[in-house]
Amino acid sequence: MSINEVIQRIRPVPHERMEAAQAHLDNLTKPRRSLGVLEEIAARMAALTEETKPAVRNPRIYVFVGDHAVNEEGVSAYPPEVTTLMVHNFLGGGAAINVLARRAGAEVRVVDVGMRDEVSLPGLIGRNVRRGAANIARGPAMILEEARQALSVGIEMAGQARAEGSTLLATGEMGIGNTTPSAALYAALLPHDPGKTAGRGTGLDEAGLKRKVAVVKQALDVNRERMHDPLSILAAVGGLEIAGIAGLCLGGAAHGLPVVVDGFISGAGALVAMRMAPSVRDYLFFSHLSAEAGHRLYFESEGLRPMLDLDMRLGEGTGAAIGIQIIEDAVAIYNEMATFQDLGIEAGA
Amino acid sequence: MSINEVIQRIRPVPHERMEAAQAHLDNLTKPRRSLGVLEEIAARMAALTEETKPAVRNPRIYVFVGDHAVNEEGVSAYPPEVTTLMVHNFLGGGAAINVLARRAGAEVRVVDVGMRDEVSLPGLIGRNVRRGAANIARGPAMILEEARQALSVGIEMAGQARAEGSTLLATGEMGIGNTTPSAALYAALLPHDPGKTAGRGTGLDEAGLKRKVAVVKQALDVNRERMHDPLSILAAVGGLEIAGIAGLCLGGAAHGLPVVVDGFISGAGALVAMRMAPSVRDYLFFSHLSAEAGHRLYFESEGLRPMLDLDMRLGEGTGAAIGIQIIEDAVAIYNEMATFQDLGIEAGA
Repeated sequence: MSINEVIQRIRPVPHERMEAAQAHLDNLTKPRRSLGVLEEIAARMAALTEETKPAVRNPRIYVFVGDHAVNEEGVSAYPPEVTTLMVHNFLGGGAAINVLARRAGAEVRVVDVGMRDEVSLPGLIGRNVRRGAANIARGPAMILEEARQALSVGIEMAGQARAEGSTLLATGEMGIGNTTPSAALYAALLPHDPGKTAGRGTGLDEAGLKRKVAVVKQALDVNRERMHDPLSILAAVGGLEIAGIAGLCLGGAAHGLPVVVDGFISGAGALVAMRMAPSVRDYLFFSHLSAEAGHRLYFESEGLRPMLDLDMRLGEGTGAAIGIQIIEDAVAIYNEMATFQDLGIEAGA
Repeated sequence: MSINEVIQRIRPVPHERMEAAQAHLDNLTKPRRSLGVLEEIAARMAALTEETKPAVRNPRIYVFVGDHAVNEEGVSAYPPEVTTLMVHNFLGGGAAINVLARRAGAEVRVVDVGMRDEVSLPGLIGRNVRRGAANIARGPAMILEEARQALSVGIEMAGQARAEGSTLLATGEMGIGNTTPSAALYAALLPHDPGKTAGRGTGLDEAGLKRKVAVVKQALDVNRERMHDPLSILAAVGGLEIAGIAGLCLGGAAHGLPVVVDGFISGAGALVAMRMAPSVRDYLFFSHLSAEAGHRLYFESEGLRPMLDLDMRLGEGTGAAIGIQIIEDAVAIYNEMATFQDLGIEAGA
C-alpha cells in the first residue's frame, strides 16, 4: 500500500462502539467510572476490536534506530557510537527495554532505519534508508523520498505484526541526538516556541540547553522554505527513526490495531502521524509523560492525557512497555469482572 | 508482640544501603536516573532487603473489611449491605481487586475486622473486633481497647505473611462509608480543614458533600476531648478496617517488609501508622493518587509522591495491585539489566 492508501484506510472509532463498551463497564461490580483511566483504556480497546472481547495477544515493541548529524552542533551528552552499542545491548537482551518488555510479555523488534554505522547483527531488522539524518541546522535531515521510505518501513512493520497475530503494537527508538529533531518537530507541528519544546535530553547542562534551543531555531530557519506539510516537515527537521514511528502509528491504525506510544521522541513520530491523518489519534495510547521539558506542553496542546508520570526520560520504548501492562490490566478488568447480575443486585449509582 | 514492641522494632532504612543501591543503578546501561521513579523504587526495595538482590515473592494484598454507623447521617451513596455483598464478590474472585491481583501475581486475603453483618464464608479471615464502628458524629467509633485489637489484627497478618514467605505486602479495604472517617483522620492528623479533606466518595452530589463535611466537623467536635495521640484519634474518628491497615503497615515495617499502600482510605491507615512510628514511612510505597479530593492534599502535606495517577477511586486495593506491578518492573530493572562493564564501556554521565 502507498502512504496515501494507508491514510485513506484509517477510520475513526465509531462512537456507538465506545458507548456499548462503556455500558458493559458500567455493569461491572464497582461504582460507575470508579476505575478512571483504566475504564477509558478498556472502552477504547473494546471499541477497537472486531471480536466480542478485547484481547492483548503477542504485543510487540518496535525500536526504530537512526542517527543524527546534528550532533556535530554539541546537542547531546553522548557520542553517536552509543547508538550502535545500544543496538548490541538490545539484541543481547540487557537493555531496560528488554527487561520491561519481558515483564509486559512483549516482543522487542529492533529496526535499523537510519543508523550511521553499517551494522549487521542477528536479529537486527535491516531497513536502512540512509546512514543517519543530515545536520538539520545546515539543511534538511533527508530528502522527501527518504522520508517516504522510512515511513513505509514503519507501515511494513505494522502489517507484518498483524499478519503474525499481534493485536497491540508499541513504539520505541534509539538515536543519540534525537531529542533535537523531536523538539524541532514539536515546534513546527504543535506549533510552539522552540524555547519551550527543547529540553535537556539525556543530560545537557544550562549552556548545552541554550545551544540546543539555538540549534532548533536555526534548523527551523534554514529549512523554512522546505516545510509545507507534515511529510516535508518530517523530511526537513525530523529523523529516520521518527519517520519509522510515524509509519508504525499510521500502519497500525490502518490495520485497526492500537499503538502504544512511548515518550518524547515517539511523541514526535505520533504527532507527524496525527497531522497526516487526524483519526489515527483514536488508535494511539500515550503511555507516559517524559521528564523531557517539552512533553507536558505536547499533551496540553493536543488535549491528551498520558497514562503514567514516572519521571522517565530513557526512551527505547520503556514507557510503552509499562503502558502495555496498564492496558493489559484494563482489558482484564473488562473481560474478567463479575457483573451486578452475577451478584444478584441492580446496577450501582 | 505488643503494639509498643512492634513500634520499637521499626528501624529507618540505612542511608548507606540506599547509596549502595543507587550506585548499582548508576552502573546499568542507561543515562543516570533516566528511569526516574522506577529507580527510586528499585533503590528502596534493594535497601530494604537483607538479600543481595531485591525480590518480590508471594505478594499479598490484605483487604480489611469494616462497617460504619456514620452512614446513618447520609454520607454515602450506597447502603451498608453492599459491604457484605462485596465480600462475597471478593471471595468469589469477581471483583476488580481479584482481577488486578491476578495480573500482579498477588494473593488476596480478606479480613473481617469490623463487619456489621455476621458472615462466615470459606476464605474469609474472621477477626471481627466489633460489629461496625459506631457513629462518629455522635461519639467515638470504638473504645481504645478495640482500636488496639484491630491494629493487632493487621500486625498479626503481617507476621503471618512473613512466616509464609511473602516479601511484599499491600493494603486494601472495603467498608461502605469509610471515606468519612478517613477524611476525619486526615483532618485530625495532617492536620487540615475538613472542608478540604472530605470528597465525594463513591458518588455524592453537592448537597451530599456539604452534609459530609458537616458530619466530619461534628465528629471532630464531639470527640475533641478523646483525641490525644494517634491511637486515641483512630479510636475516636477512625474505623476498624483502617486500624487493620495501620497495623499491617506497622507490622510489615517491624518485619522489614515493604508495604504498598492503596488509595484514600488506606492512606488514612498509613497516616496513623506514620504518626505512631515515623520510620514506617521508609517501608511504605504509595501506589496512586485517588480521585477523592483530599488525597492530593495528603501527598502535598506529607511531601510524598504516589507512583500513579489513574483517576481511580474504587479502593479494595486496586491501586496497590497496579503498584505491585510497577514495583516488580523496578526490581526487574535492578536485577536484570546489563552494566556498562558488560558492554565494555565506561559508565555514562
